[in-house]
Amino acid sequence: MSIITLSHGSGGKATNKLIEELFYKYFNNDILLQKNDSSVLPNIDGRIAVSTDSFVINPIFFNGGDIGKLSVCGTVNDLAMSGATPLYITVGFIIQEGLKIKELEKVVKSIAATARKANVKIVAGDTKVVEKGNADKIYINTTGIGVIKDEKYLSSENIKPGDKVIVSGTLGDHGICIMSKRKNLDFDVSVKSDCGLLNKLIKKILSKSSNVRVLRDPTRGGLATTLNEFVNESPNSILLYEQALPVKEEVASMCEILGFEPLYIANEGKVVLIVAEEDSEKVLEIMKKDPMGKEAQIIGEVIEDNNAVVYLKTEIGGTRILNMPVGELLPRIC
Amino acid sequence: MSIITLSHGSGGKATNKLIEELFYKYFNNDILLQKNDSSVLPNIDGRIAVSTDSFVINPIFFNGGDIGKLSVCGTVNDLAMSGATPLYITVGFIIQEGLKIKELEKVVKSIAATARKANVKIVAGDTKVVEKGNADKIYINTTGIGVIKDEKYLSSENIKPGDKVIVSGTLGDHGICIMSKRKNLDFDVSVKSDCGLLNKLIKKILSKSSNVRVLRDPTRGGLATTLNEFVNESPNSILLYEQALPVKEEVASMCEILGFEPLYIANEGKVVLIVAEEDSEKVLEIMKKDPMGKEAQIIGEVIEDNNAVVYLKTEIGGTRILNMPVGELLPRIC
Repeated sequence: MSIITLSHGSGGKATNKLIEELFYKYFNNDILLQKNDSSVLPNIDGRIAVSTDSFVINPIFFNGGDIGKLSVCGTVNDLAMSGATPLYITVGFIIQEGLKIKELEKVVKSIAATARKANVKIVAGDTKVVEKGNADKIYINTTGIGVIKDEKYLSSENIKPGDKVIVSGTLGDHGICIMSKRKNLDFDVSVKSDCGLLNKLIKKILSKSSNVRVLRDPTRGGLATTLNEFVNESPNSILLYEQALPVKEEVASMCEILGFEPLYIANEGKVVLIVAEEDSEKVLEIMKKDPMGKEAQIIGEVIEDNNAVVYLKTEIGGTRILNMPVGELLPRIC
Repeated sequence: MSIITLSHGSGGKATNKLIEELFYKYFNNDILLQKNDSSVLPNIDGRIAVSTDSFVINPIFFNGGDIGKLSVCGTVNDLAMSGATPLYITVGFIIQEGLKIKELEKVVKSIAATARKANVKIVAGDTKVVEKGNADKIYINTTGIGVIKDEKYLSSENIKPGDKVIVSGTLGDHGICIMSKRKNLDFDVSVKSDCGLLNKLIKKILSKSSNVRVLRDPTRGGLATTLNEFVNESPNSILLYEQALPVKEEVASMCEILGFEPLYIANEGKVVLIVAEEDSEKVLEIMKKDPMGKEAQIIGEVIEDNNAVVYLKTEIGGTRILNMPVGELLPRIC
C-alpha cells in the first residue's frame, strides 16, 4: 500500500507493519526496541531538562529542511538553551489519511539523520491517523530529555546592566523561506531556512564562559519577541543597535516586499544570548569559529531602565520601542 | 475574545495571555513556572521510564471523560505498565482556530484535575493553532516521565506456560461509549467510558507480588491485540476462557448491534497482566479490593504451544484463534 490509511492508526496489523518497517528500521536502537508501553532509560546522573514542541509547519518540505529535521532541531535546541546535553527524544505523529508513505519515509529518514547528528536516541513513539479534512499531511510532536551536569541555572532573571546581547547569525531566514515558498514568490535566489542544531555550539560556549546569563532560540515571534520575554522577566531594559543586526540581503528585500520586519520573523537555527560584558568578546570569538555561529554579532546591551522594554537605536540615530507582537504573524511557521 | 484564533499560536501577546491565564493558572507548579525553553527537574534516583501518546479522539467530551482526562490517564497508565511511578508529564496542544476558549478551559481543567489525582506535575507545554479544516477541535500529545525503583524488568519475554492471564475489569466500555455517541445511538442506558488512572492499582500489585511477568493496558485494538503482542514476543501461546471474560450487558448488546467483538474494542482504564500461577489468586484478591479492579477476573493461561497465537475456548466448548485485527477498527477512539 502506498498511502497512509486509517487502519495504520488502528493499533492492528497495519500499525505494526508501519512501526516495524519504518520506525524501527530508521530509529533503530536498543531502548526503542524494548517494544513496551513505555521505554526504560538508564539512570541519568544530574538534573534533567525536559522540553516539548509540536510541529505543524506548512509546507512540510522546504529549502534547507523538512518537518522531520525541524522537529528534532527544535527540541534539541530548546534543551541546549537550558544548558543541557540532549540525550533522548520521543516522537508522536498525527498523520492525515492519504499521505504518501514515500513522503512519510522521507520525514522519518530526516528525523533519524538529524537525531544521529545531534547524538540523541529516539526512545518512544506514537502514531495516530485522522480522516481527510482533519489535519494537513503530518503533525509531529517531539519531547526531549537532557542532562545538566553543573549547578548553574541559566535565567533571564540573572541579567544585569552592561551585559551584552549576542545573536549567532542572520535573522529571519526560516520565516522568509517558508513564506516565500507558500506564496510561490519566484526570486532569483531562494532563501534557505536556517533550520539546524545548536547543541554543539552551546556546549562550546558554556564550557568556556561561566558568565552567560541566559540563552534562547528566537523561533516564533523572532528576536524581538525573545528579547521582550527577557525584559519581562527582569527589572532592566535592552538597547539594540540596528546597524549591528545581521540580516541577509535577500531576506531584507523580501521583508520589504511583504511588509515584515526581520526582527519579528522566526529563526530555527539561531541563538540569542546575554553575557557579562567581560566575557562578550571571548564568547563572540568562540561563536564565529563554529559553523553555526559564523555570522555572530554583538547586537545590543542591557541597560538600567525599569520600563522593561526593548529599545532599537535606528541607523539614523533615533530610538523606538520594539513591542511584543500583537496578532497573527505567520501561521504554521513551525 | 471567546474563541481560539491563529494569533494564539503565533508566539506573541495572545499566546502569552493564553499561557498565563489558562495554562499557568491551572497547571501551576514551580517547575512549569521556570518559564524557560526547557524545564529543569530535580535528579531522579532510579531508572527512568518514558512514554509518549497523541490523542485525537472524537468527540472530545464523552460519558466518563474528555480528551484532557484521557490524555493524562493514557500516558500515566503507560508509565505504570512498565512498573514506573509516574512523576512528570508534558502537554502539547494542536488546536483548530474557532475552538471556544470555554471548551479549551474545560479540557485544561480536566488535565489539571487528573494530573493532581495521578500525583504527576505538568512540567512543560506547547500550543500550536492551525486553520479551519486542518484539525478537528483539539489534539493533545502527552509525554510522561516516571521512575523505576527496583531492578525488575517487566516484559512479555518472561512469560511461561502455566502463568495466568488476569484482566482488571469489563472489556470494551470505552470504545462502545465513543461509538454510540458518534452514531447518536439512543439507548436507555448510555455506556460510560472506563477512562481512568491505573497507577495506584499497579503499585499495589507490584508491591505484593514479584511474580508479575508483564502488564499492559489494552487500548487501541483491545484485549485481543494486546495478547497477540504478548505471544509475538514469546515462544508460547495463550488460551482464553470465553465464559470468564467480563463484559457489561449493554456493551455486549451494542457489540451485537454494531457487529463488533468486545475483545477487539478499546479500553482506557483496564490492565491485562500475566502472573505466575502461584501468585495469581493473591493478585486477583488485591485487584478486587481496588476501585479500579473490582471486576477483575482470571481469564486465561499461557500454554506451551509454539504457534504463538491466542486461542479462545468458547462457551460451547470449541476453540478458535483470535488474530491480530486487520484493517480499520474504530478510528479516533483515543
